[in-house]
Amino acid sequence: MQSFSDYLEIVNKAIAAVEYPAQPAHLYEPIAYTMSLGGKRLRPVLTLMACEAFGTPCEAAINQAVGLEFYHNFTLLHDDVMDKADVRRGKPTVHCRWDENTAILSGDAMLTTATIIMSKAPADKLPAVMDIFNRTAMEIYEGQQWDMDFESRNDVTVDEYIEMIRLKTSVLFGAACRLGSVIAGADEASQEALYGFAMELGLAFQLQDDYLDTYGDPATFGKEIGGDILNAKKTFMLISAYRNADKETTERLDALFAINDKSRNAEKIAGVKAIYDKLEIPRLCTEQIDSHLAKSLEWLDKVAFKGDGRKAFEAYVNMLVNRDK
Amino acid sequence: MQSFSDYLEIVNKAIAAVEYPAQPAHLYEPIAYTMSLGGKRLRPVLTLMACEAFGTPCEAAINQAVGLEFYHNFTLLHDDVMDKADVRRGKPTVHCRWDENTAILSGDAMLTTATIIMSKAPADKLPAVMDIFNRTAMEIYEGQQWDMDFESRNDVTVDEYIEMIRLKTSVLFGAACRLGSVIAGADEASQEALYGFAMELGLAFQLQDDYLDTYGDPATFGKEIGGDILNAKKTFMLISAYRNADKETTERLDALFAINDKSRNAEKIAGVKAIYDKLEIPRLCTEQIDSHLAKSLEWLDKVAFKGDGRKAFEAYVNMLVNRDK
Repeated sequence: MQSFSDYLEIVNKAIAAVEYPAQPAHLYEPIAYTMSLGGKRLRPVLTLMACEAFGTPCEAAINQAVGLEFYHNFTLLHDDVMDKADVRRGKPTVHCRWDENTAILSGDAMLTTATIIMSKAPADKLPAVMDIFNRTAMEIYEGQQWDMDFESRNDVTVDEYIEMIRLKTSVLFGAACRLGSVIAGADEASQEALYGFAMELGLAFQLQDDYLDTYGDPATFGKEIGGDILNAKKTFMLISAYRNADKETTERLDALFAINDKSRNAEKIAGVKAIYDKLEIPRLCTEQIDSHLAKSLEWLDKVAFKGDGRKAFEAYVNMLVNRDK
Repeated sequence: MQSFSDYLEIVNKAIAAVEYPAQPAHLYEPIAYTMSLGGKRLRPVLTLMACEAFGTPCEAAINQAVGLEFYHNFTLLHDDVMDKADVRRGKPTVHCRWDENTAILSGDAMLTTATIIMSKAPADKLPAVMDIFNRTAMEIYEGQQWDMDFESRNDVTVDEYIEMIRLKTSVLFGAACRLGSVIAGADEASQEALYGFAMELGLAFQLQDDYLDTYGDPATFGKEIGGDILNAKKTFMLISAYRNADKETTERLDALFAINDKSRNAEKIAGVKAIYDKLEIPRLCTEQIDSHLAKSLEWLDKVAFKGDGRKAFEAYVNMLVNRDK
């Protein structure tokens, strides 16, 4: 097995090698722009690793890796339109740099481009590849819809939140692993176990993402700290805070989340964080993350790796756990 | 071969049999709603006809027929968001009945749903089916992008307009025919010829659509007459009028298209129509339509039909020519 940075280089080279027609420019430039903004490439690296872990050179799964990364970036492009987000990876989002219609249409074209790249599979693997890809895509739309539905609800439970991030985040990690293992021709039990690993890892990843959004280091996190608090996002932390708060603390939280004055953003974030701290939400959150990480590593026991695959997956998990952005 | 109404019934039954998950309701209800609004189902009927015309029962191509109709309706859903259109088939569009975010996300889910249905093909046909479907989808996005680009241009030529409607309309008729003939295992030359037929038919269809938008009978057309004039759409008629107008008529057209006062809509439409009539644009347009129809029928000479396939395709063309909506 190779290192994360080796796989990352293979992925980035393949993404850079994708050619786009010159015209119509407003259709293809936003796709090239979106893919050029970089990102951690966590999912395509996982696809290459899952392929090589069963003894097949990772290049065999490069189209499925790149197709999945195109798909992931398509979802971010349309999510940014829906969330009216101005910045992504430190650069203007497509609907800000161009306009909303351009973002909708080039996003559609990006989804079909992802499908085209994904379809470049051996004919005998194509039905399974398309099935995994399309099923995962539907689950991700469902996750995004639940996320939007939660905005107008005040009774979201931790279980509902976990199910939402399973759909919105975990299944794409799961598909990344399954695509690589399908291309490698892994046995069904190993495919299932690696999928189980990815589901738990995805939950830990998203819980940590939410944690960093509130408790990350502004110097390294890459985006504004406290965005989820300002948007009153129904994260594990917010839901747990309300669940554990007494009457007085609940009223204080309600008052803080009711603040709708940008000049008081810092006060709002600091106030909510102080309550989270008092209620020991950071500890609760870290325990949740650790629990899902432990479960993800347990799944690896059931995978029939060839060679040093297990070590590579453990290194990947460690890298994710120790990230600060 | 069966009649148009027989194929239509098979298509509508298959569309009605598609099941949607109950939750999340905001994701799936707009898809079911869109598909329930009806439509002429021209493209899926063509797929069934193209399959049966080569001696294979049309049911073999039902998934490709229905998948293509889902795709077509997905493009209408997102186009209506981009065009800010309130009404489609006499009913509120999705972004009006729900909201814009719902229209974007359920549209994305509709595109993936189309891909899922399209993928239900025999394994040996799947690579060709996916290739036709995805390539066509990219062409349609290109056509839509050109159409949007044309809005801010005043130098669009007839050739550019024809290329735009080839991409936006013809290629989907082409894909409808090719998918049916691929499923039936038709010889390559017949597939090509039937595709050529569909390309010319698509051009005639769109030119006629534009003609009816200005000259249709309000009682039967189903939508407001003159919409293209009010939006100054760069149709064959508008482009030809400017190309054939003398200086005085050009100024009069400019003045009419500059009217931006809803209470003068009727005056604007009547004024432009009077100029079209004076310049004999309706005759020019009809000649164009007839020319493409003649070419489409010529292509049929090169198709190795089994049985009475040719007669069925001629009947389909006649039905399209004589439509009033």
